[in-house]
Amino acid sequence: MRETDIVSARCRVALLGFGTVGAAVARRLTGSESGPPPAFHLTHIFDRRAPQKRALLPAPGVTWTTSIDEVLHSGADIVVEAIGGVEPAAGWIRAALLAGTSVVTANKQVVARDGADLLTLAARQGRQLRFEAAVGGAMPIVRAIGEGLAGDRITRLTAILNGTTNAVLSQMEATGSALDDAVEDARALGYAEADASADLDGHDARAKLAILCGLAFGLRVDPLQIEARSTAAISQADFARARERGATIRQIAYADYDRTTRLLTAWVAPIEVAEGSIFARTAGPQNAAVITGVHSGETGIFGAGAGGDATAVAVLGDIAAIAKDRSAIVPSPALSRDFRVRSSDFRLDCRLDIPALVEAL
Amino acid sequence: MRETDIVSARCRVALLGFGTVGAAVARRLTGSESGPPPAFHLTHIFDRRAPQKRALLPAPGVTWTTSIDEVLHSGADIVVEAIGGVEPAAGWIRAALLAGTSVVTANKQVVARDGADLLTLAARQGRQLRFEAAVGGAMPIVRAIGEGLAGDRITRLTAILNGTTNAVLSQMEATGSALDDAVEDARALGYAEADASADLDGHDARAKLAILCGLAFGLRVDPLQIEARSTAAISQADFARARERGATIRQIAYADYDRTTRLLTAWVAPIEVAEGSIFARTAGPQNAAVITGVHSGETGIFGAGAGGDATAVAVLGDIAAIAKDRSAIVPSPALSRDFRVRSSDFRLDCRLDIPALVEAL
Repeated sequence: MRETDIVSARCRVALLGFGTVGAAVARRLTGSESGPPPAFHLTHIFDRRAPQKRALLPAPGVTWTTSIDEVLHSGADIVVEAIGGVEPAAGWIRAALLAGTSVVTANKQVVARDGADLLTLAARQGRQLRFEAAVGGAMPIVRAIGEGLAGDRITRLTAILNGTTNAVLSQMEATGSALDDAVEDARALGYAEADASADLDGHDARAKLAILCGLAFGLRVDPLQIEARSTAAISQADFARARERGATIRQIAYADYDRTTRLLTAWVAPIEVAEGSIFARTAGPQNAAVITGVHSGETGIFGAGAGGDATAVAVLGDIAAIAKDRSAIVPSPALSRDFRVRSSDFRLDCRLDIPALVEAL
Repeated sequence: MRETDIVSARCRVALLGFGTVGAAVARRLTGSESGPPPAFHLTHIFDRRAPQKRALLPAPGVTWTTSIDEVLHSGADIVVEAIGGVEPAAGWIRAALLAGTSVVTANKQVVARDGADLLTLAARQGRQLRFEAAVGGAMPIVRAIGEGLAGDRITRLTAILNGTTNAVLSQMEATGSALDDAVEDARALGYAEADASADLDGHDARAKLAILCGLAFGLRVDPLQIEARSTAAISQADFARARERGATIRQIAYADYDRTTRLLTAWVAPIEVAEGSIFARTAGPQNAAVITGVHSGETGIFGAGAGGDATAVAVLGDIAAIAKDRSAIVPSPALSRDFRVRSSDFRLDCRLDIPALVEAL
């Protein structure tokens, strides 16, 4: 067997974007770090700054390009989208699927806005769209809800979905520092971007929550339908009051759905959570979620919610799943638009009614 | 469209065994309880006591039979094996795959012993074998390890995998009762069978741990290679000593694998776990697991580890996954036999080196 045969038998992967996540994915795929056996061949990396960045990856077999068309016509089996932002990322995912390529994305904004349509397109094309990395970093919550608990009727989701805000709040709790100082510390540790407002304001978490509502309840939720209260004004006075009540403060993303009345209750807000609860114990850039089902009760999951290496684990898992069966079709879900939405009448000091199991954990 | 067309378009499921799990699966599939929309048609139920049991399920469209051949030649798309025990269950799973039928099983003993061979057979037949229900009840740990974290290099598993023993130990801790009384209580609550020795002795947990070692490390582990120390002799004196050290006692299943030396460390034993840790906080028939990966750090999962309804959730999820793509092939893993195994030099009072994240949770 010639070398070219061996190479062509491997699954060809092209990467869009060489930022934090993209670079981590590229390192894993080119074997410059430990990982799964190289069943994959990274053929192309698209990045606007490809000429400047190519020195960052010691992989001679990879073609760097600033032309998206070159990637879309490269004959890759899978395109990994790690650009971020809504456009042009959404258009490129669509173009890749139309070109007959499966897509793995870490892009919560695109999946929250266009996920249902893109899944429909993927199914029509006989290709796959996977997005485990869009929610929860390495924590495999997309699979847990979309597949593992698909045999149940899920009624409620309670989660910490934004690692940056969680790092800030747990730092404030631990050190007594002001929010601005905690944000600065999170930046220094690489947990926060220069502008942390999308994290603190809950816009990041509500996009992720909208994705999970699609998986758990079959609803097509626009992130803007989910009320987000900002964490930016939380002070040590709030923590002191919480402490008096045996609690601390976390940014919680919450959704429950009453199928009888078709009423979705969904919000993202900083609220008090009981000391000792799984959410109070989630520190740093971790994520955690509790999924309530009619038959399974409470199922929980927690793990690294942010960071390039952790997010790359989710991307690699999706690549492996597609490679296992290149022709497999993931049917698009039939998402309902026929529901109402509300945010609960919550206040900062209204303690979340956390299920007994979770309270115990 | 005629009624027969609608029926034949649905995925035909046949069920082997109408015990606790089988009955819960049958109720969900026949819509006598809330659940996913009836995309599935339960056509046959095999049970040795079919004539006596048929009155238990108000579903006129289901054929009850005491003939396994009738089920295997029924033209079902999926056979659900909920018989339990190694034989004849393993033989019937093999026969179903040979007949071109995908199989969903809750049978940890069969998957631990024959899983690798059965997956190879399934792949050769172009069919699927799925077994989420064999480990962890509703807790989707098979997907978490086998798919969600497949993009990482997993180095360690620490888990509570036996709900019965956990219910007994957490009851002893909470009430100060003797082990025999706690076992009696667990039986009364439906958490323990008449003979709880396979649970207490760790034989159940080590079969599950062997399955997880296959998924996490790619190793073909015989459950008998895993040392199991019995929980049956744990007394209140042990709990008192643990309490003095700020700990309690749980049956822990542990495995780590050093890929350089090919050394697998694996054991199941009652050991002390720190108060406040996720394992100490796992009460009743719950399961919990922490998976350590090179890139993802610690990922945790917990949920209902036992009970017919919870286990049925895992079975239904597997049925749905197969129905999504009836022709999909799940390739069999290449499991290595080239490794050594040891149990650690642990003692009851040697505290588990639980990772920081877990300790915090």
